[in-house]
Amino acid sequence: MIKVLRLGHRLGRDDRISTHVGLTARQWGADQIVFAGEKDENMLESQRDIIERWGGETEVRYAEEWRREIKEFDGLKIHLTMYGEKINENIEDLKQQFSDTEDLLIVVGAEKVPRWVYKNVDQNISVGNQPHSEIAALAVFMDRIQEGEIKEDFERAEIYVEPSEDRKLTEKIGSE
Amino acid sequence: MIKVLRLGHRLGRDDRISTHVGLTARQWGADQIVFAGEKDENMLESQRDIIERWGGETEVRYAEEWRREIKEFDGLKIHLTMYGEKINENIEDLKQQFSDTEDLLIVVGAEKVPRWVYKNVDQNISVGNQPHSEIAALAVFMDRIQEGEIKEDFERAEIYVEPSEDRKLTEKIGSE
Repeated sequence: MIKVLRLGHRLGRDDRISTHVGLTARQWGADQIVFAGEKDENMLESQRDIIERWGGETEVRYAEEWRREIKEFDGLKIHLTMYGEKINENIEDLKQQFSDTEDLLIVVGAEKVPRWVYKNVDQNISVGNQPHSEIAALAVFMDRIQEGEIKEDFERAEIYVEPSEDRKLTEKIGSE
Repeated sequence: MIKVLRLGHRLGRDDRISTHVGLTARQWGADQIVFAGEKDENMLESQRDIIERWGGETEVRYAEEWRREIKEFDGLKIHLTMYGEKINENIEDLKQQFSDTEDLLIVVGAEKVPRWVYKNVDQNISVGNQPHSEIAALAVFMDRIQEGEIKEDFERAEIYVEPSEDRKLTEKIGSE
């Protein structure tokens, strides 16, 4: 089971970035995506709409008490931060731990992440030590820890893509 | 040489997403990042500021005539789109082509990408066929085609991160 916790969402300023975080987590197979910070029903709803059309069981919700989401999680807890230990030096060990516990919590922040987070996860991991994007860090981390397995089957999808050499092809279920 | 072309930037709406695209491209070693769509000097400047502090030679610029950036590029041209052919079925071949030409153009769009793009690149590739994030697609594609090599040394950096188990550590050059 994979859970992604997105900290520090700010209304307005972060809506698109947080939406990309959520949809990226879904594409790489997250079962639960939890948003903390300012409560933003529109942002959550727009993700739920996409999940309804494109299928799957990903749960998207808000948590005011986000510390509890970390504390009470039973499994491997990783915080992605540019200040953390290098992914390339840790990935083999992380893959082993993930395959042992099967439950993984990935925490990504917005601007400032409290020191408490650094101390209450199992490991702080950097996907590059330069300033870039929590979306990029999350995607590459999930891609690596699952060895490039990109989720393809989403149950009860109303729409899906037919991969194509040179055009946009989608199919709607039950629409012929 | 790696060049990233970001199409269809919209002022205001896309500034943070485009900034994440640019910084992600830089983290994974892009030499040139070209933005098309609406011209946005603030967005370009904020990236140049980061490059000045954090180092490296990444060139960031605007192009009004973006079709020329694709047409005149001499090397492998890949458009990342959720409608394209699956990365997992093509990555070994793409790695081979990249190692042959050494020059790679990666095109990522915002909302609607003209059909012209699909027809004028060498291949349209999907990093997952679900709606998610061009930032995630770009990061994973660059990570995979370079076999997980994350760029570490940026010349003339004023600041760098000291990877740490549990805190934020940065060093400023010449500040002791």
